Amino acid sequence: MNGHCLSSDDRNGFGVRKIESALPVSSRAINTHNPIRNIVDQMKIEPNVEKSFIPLSIGDPTTFGNPPISCATKEALFDVIEKGNCHGYGPSDGFLVAKEAIAQFYSTDLYPLSTNDIILTSSCSGAIDLAIGAVAEEGTNILIPRPGFSIYESLTTLYNVNVKHYNLKPDKNWQIDLEHLEALVDPKTSAIVVCNPSNPCGSVWSRSHMISILKIAERHSLPIIADEIYADMVFSDVDNASFGQLSKNVPILIMGGMAKRWLVLGWRISWILIQDRHNKLTYVRKGLKNLSQRILGPNSLCQLAIPKILSETSDVFYENVMRKPWK
Amino acid sequence: MNGHCLSSDDRNGFGVRKIESALPVSSRAINTHNPIRNIVDQMKIEPNVEKSFIPLSIGDPTTFGNPPISCATKEALFDVIEKGNCHGYGPSDGFLVAKEAIAQFYSTDLYPLSTNDIILTSSCSGAIDLAIGAVAEEGTNILIPRPGFSIYESLTTLYNVNVKHYNLKPDKNWQIDLEHLEALVDPKTSAIVVCNPSNPCGSVWSRSHMISILKIAERHSLPIIADEIYADMVFSDVDNASFGQLSKNVPILIMGGMAKRWLVLGWRISWILIQDRHNKLTYVRKGLKNLSQRILGPNSLCQLAIPKILSETSDVFYENVMRKPWK
Repeated sequence: MNGHCLSSDDRNGFGVRKIESALPVSSRAINTHNPIRNIVDQMKIEPNVEKSFIPLSIGDPTTFGNPPISCATKEALFDVIEKGNCHGYGPSDGFLVAKEAIAQFYSTDLYPLSTNDIILTSSCSGAIDLAIGAVAEEGTNILIPRPGFSIYESLTTLYNVNVKHYNLKPDKNWQIDLEHLEALVDPKTSAIVVCNPSNPCGSVWSRSHMISILKIAERHSLPIIADEIYADMVFSDVDNASFGQLSKNVPILIMGGMAKRWLVLGWRISWILIQDRHNKLTYVRKGLKNLSQRILGPNSLCQLAIPKILSETSDVFYENVMRKPWK
Repeated sequence: MNGHCLSSDDRNGFGVRKIESALPVSSRAINTHNPIRNIVDQMKIEPNVEKSFIPLSIGDPTTFGNPPISCATKEALFDVIEKGNCHGYGPSDGFLVAKEAIAQFYSTDLYPLSTNDIILTSSCSGAIDLAIGAVAEEGTNILIPRPGFSIYESLTTLYNVNVKHYNLKPDKNWQIDLEHLEALVDPKTSAIVVCNPSNPCGSVWSRSHMISILKIAERHSLPIIADEIYADMVFSDVDNASFGQLSKNVPILIMGGMAKRWLVLGWRISWILIQDRHNKLTYVRKGLKNLSQRILGPNSLCQLAIPKILSETSDVFYENVMRKPWK
């Protein structure tokens, strides 16, 4: 990706402006890289007439037209548009009706969520951005998985936060190398970032492994930023627990959204579920709300369609989808 | 707003964690303030039974139900949803069809725009965020209007960029005090931010005043970040020029979007028009594209509705709206 960088000489120019030369760009903009997007957005390939193109997907089934979105999703959109009053500003952290539906959907008897525990964001990248932005002070570090989704590292650049990579074990169904993880914790560590079900590994951790991770977080008083955007997208014989269900003492920020589970990746409707424990996230919660005021929430139409869409249960949705013949 | 801040004592805790205490929050999150949103989102007012509530609007006519969105806007949404294939990921800087429509809409004979000059963003705040983020190096300053839209200052906090306020003259239809503006320029100045038509003043500058501003920018080799979100929303006898039409030598980043002009504030569909001159924005353009990869563009449904909506001319739209009886 360095081919797209400007050399350090090129960056100079602040205070020594010349009218005819190109203006300088900030180092934060130069240093921002999303390796996946560098490939996807800028790919220009000369077709080989003798070979067909094999698309290695970016996790977007809509590219291939299947499976389709659910009928309820489409109906919910039409309802919202017909009803009107859906084009105005909402609160920075999301419309109340959307927050109510999400809180209800993800509440458990043990750990119920209120609307105060939900922050709507524009895309799951936006949710991760807010979470890291609120939790990690400049000069601290966060622990992220290797292999892992590249955006965690891309986003930290802006905040002068360091990343340390903990290893996943390919021969143990991509469980975390727990000794390695714990050895990386230092007094400057702000949070542990986990991703389960795993992007890019496709693995799903057992509850016992998740509890082992929680124990490490608890020992070092670290919050967990849990990327659960692929939650519930598992085969029927797999138990996919949420860190929010399992944690007794560790505060968790869960990153979720509609993109994957409801097949609406372009909507950019995501959220943070604040799974606090013992009021440890009092300050972080306020910080998240402050940061949500920078961009003021995701698209109103799609937010207002959430209650109807989430009222359809997971099972019904998947049955409907799976029964249709795939192309 | 300081009532919502945490004291500096509260912020401490990095490296001295205690299991039972609340976790620390980053100073960037504490220091992020959007004064308007602090009021709008957190307003809890006990109704006075003897007096009716007077809503002082936040620039969102949809709150009052009028004027309605145009028929073309509604039809465009239905078309997109019916056609399908509108729920997937787009490029980080926007769908090509949306960029084509916007480029065509804002092109002039003298300064045509190509799709490479358009970056779609999630909200106009997102556009301003990208522009300031790309142009202003840490430790530099930007010049912003007083009175002015508070978000310019809110967004710079994250980047450790300073703001200097230039005065507007209330007795001169809120023109810039040009002497004051020029006196504020120093070797660390990165950009001049302007807002025309003005939020919050409601004024529209004459072409000659805009050319005077451009001369100052040119003398100091500064780019202009022009917030033109209220473009074209003027009475029929008012000439509302764009900085992009008038600038011969000064590179301009124009902030625009659908929110105000098309009455769809909640859609969060905005854009940056890169009005380069003499290739001065070569590096900045690359920086803007890098930063757009952090969040990956705004809502797909509404982006894909743009071509149909923009194909309706401004005059027809306003005639249709204005002919309807307002509530």
